[in-house]
Amino acid sequence: MRQAGRFLPEYRALRAQHGFLELCKTPALAAEVTLLPIRRFPVDAAILFADILLVLEPMGVGLEFAKGDGPVIHHPVRTREDVGRLTRAPVQMTLAFVLETIRLARAELGARAPLIGFAGAPFTLASYLVEGRGSRNYVHTKTLMYGDPRAWHALMERLAETTVDYVQAQIAAGVQAVQLFDSWVGCLGPDDYREYVLPHMRAALAAIATAGVPVIHFGTGTSALLELMRDAGGDVIGLDWRVDLAEAWGRLGPGVGVQGNLDPVALFAPPEEIRRHAARILGRAGGRPGHIFNLGHGVLPETPVEHVAALVDAVHELSAR
Amino acid sequence: MRQAGRFLPEYRALRAQHGFLELCKTPALAAEVTLLPIRRFPVDAAILFADILLVLEPMGVGLEFAKGDGPVIHHPVRTREDVGRLTRAPVQMTLAFVLETIRLARAELGARAPLIGFAGAPFTLASYLVEGRGSRNYVHTKTLMYGDPRAWHALMERLAETTVDYVQAQIAAGVQAVQLFDSWVGCLGPDDYREYVLPHMRAALAAIATAGVPVIHFGTGTSALLELMRDAGGDVIGLDWRVDLAEAWGRLGPGVGVQGNLDPVALFAPPEEIRRHAARILGRAGGRPGHIFNLGHGVLPETPVEHVAALVDAVHELSAR
Repeated sequence: MRQAGRFLPEYRALRAQHGFLELCKTPALAAEVTLLPIRRFPVDAAILFADILLVLEPMGVGLEFAKGDGPVIHHPVRTREDVGRLTRAPVQMTLAFVLETIRLARAELGARAPLIGFAGAPFTLASYLVEGRGSRNYVHTKTLMYGDPRAWHALMERLAETTVDYVQAQIAAGVQAVQLFDSWVGCLGPDDYREYVLPHMRAALAAIATAGVPVIHFGTGTSALLELMRDAGGDVIGLDWRVDLAEAWGRLGPGVGVQGNLDPVALFAPPEEIRRHAARILGRAGGRPGHIFNLGHGVLPETPVEHVAALVDAVHELSAR
Repeated sequence: MRQAGRFLPEYRALRAQHGFLELCKTPALAAEVTLLPIRRFPVDAAILFADILLVLEPMGVGLEFAKGDGPVIHHPVRTREDVGRLTRAPVQMTLAFVLETIRLARAELGARAPLIGFAGAPFTLASYLVEGRGSRNYVHTKTLMYGDPRAWHALMERLAETTVDYVQAQIAAGVQAVQLFDSWVGCLGPDDYREYVLPHMRAALAAIATAGVPVIHFGTGTSALLELMRDAGGDVIGLDWRVDLAEAWGRLGPGVGVQGNLDPVALFAPPEEIRRHAARILGRAGGRPGHIFNLGHGVLPETPVEHVAALVDAVHELSAR
């Protein structure tokens, strides 16, 4: 989970010299960042360095990563007309730099570890497009969704198509698994998920599944949505830390794996406490095949690096037993 | 839910002349604000105008409601020593203005509608005390919780005692029901809730129950915590909009009522769509006694006032059928 993230000093050193979008758009640098965590920790996979919002820039909405403020969309999409104005261009052209990053990272990784690609899921992309930035209450997003369902579905359809193209291009370029981030879909209740999100996720995940690469379907705050997310698709369902792993996996049934679910804030605890948390999660998974140990959401920037190392060691040691 | 809230123009007119704490501390004004919603809408109860953080000020931590920034605690509680330094004084003295507000509001209300009092639950109060402000990830709170459990439990015990004193004083002053706001407890997983919160909530709710007044136990993002919250106590469990009401009530069992669970953002939709949402929730409740229709969290400041009126009418009309 965001292994190439902002908590590594070597990443921050690179960021001191390069803007965030510049890093993403320079394959040699992005491949280097992709490999940083795997050079430092004995993790089992590398995760592409990129951002879920990169697909939005070629739509003509004006994406910027403002210092301290997070991502900003200069022309938010709030009406049917705004949806109609979104421009369309093949991801192989507009996101060629990501595909080149994948090829470089794969060449470097060799047989050391697989490379996981990722993309934003339609709802989460839509929430940024409509709000114009991160949000607490998603007022504009839900106002469009409830107030003009036709425009909403047109937007979701468009985003689902782009997501499929983008993920398929990543797979063609060499990623060996894919994670679809529906990070903010947990702001919806089950009825709204069923009506406004599920059909688009189902279409996207079905199209992606034809590539034969494992897909992790991730969300946060989704305790009440898990069965619906499973119905939408994905080989593995991401669980955040606010749900009991054993209980959630039981609800999901036998056909699906799970990923999770350590609280990222647990990494601020003393190493022996981190170990206790890891042991509890592994105990809940009960050695059942199909559990990917991970955090429930991204590593926070202030996380002590040595605590991440302690976690990786604890997970390997405890799983080997 | 925050009926006396910031969305009413008559409230904003008062706020233009008075600071937030000044409003809270002037019983004639606070009683007036308490009555504003009930003068405008045919709602079934009035809710005390106050703030869950008022109990923290007499602890000597320096509470301020900074313009635009929300509440700020100038001396956050982050260590065992900080916990030990919290000052103690009887709420009958330090919060006499709240108790006087209750007496004035009750006198005005007469038989028109009951008055609901409220208090913050220990975890949510602790999160403000430790973070010093609202938080997204609760890093300081969980760092104290995981890193120094003894200090954490001492803090929670202290807050639980104060909450009990405060709620009992409100009941003695005349409130006819009480809501305990554990607004941010949904940032915890079930194991952490069980270990770090449940014992204190159980103690507080048992002590409050002796007064014989109905207690609503409220939280948000708590889909995976509902059974534990019920075990902690309360006559009614608050449900936010991210859970199916029928399913949640089924999980809670027969002995308890539920409150909820309209998405506050649904109030930005057109009135006919608001009505559809209300009808769906009432359908899920199925006419079973013990359902209090409410939002899943507070009214947002920009909510159109006429949409709130449309909701109140829809709920009354649909429930009468």
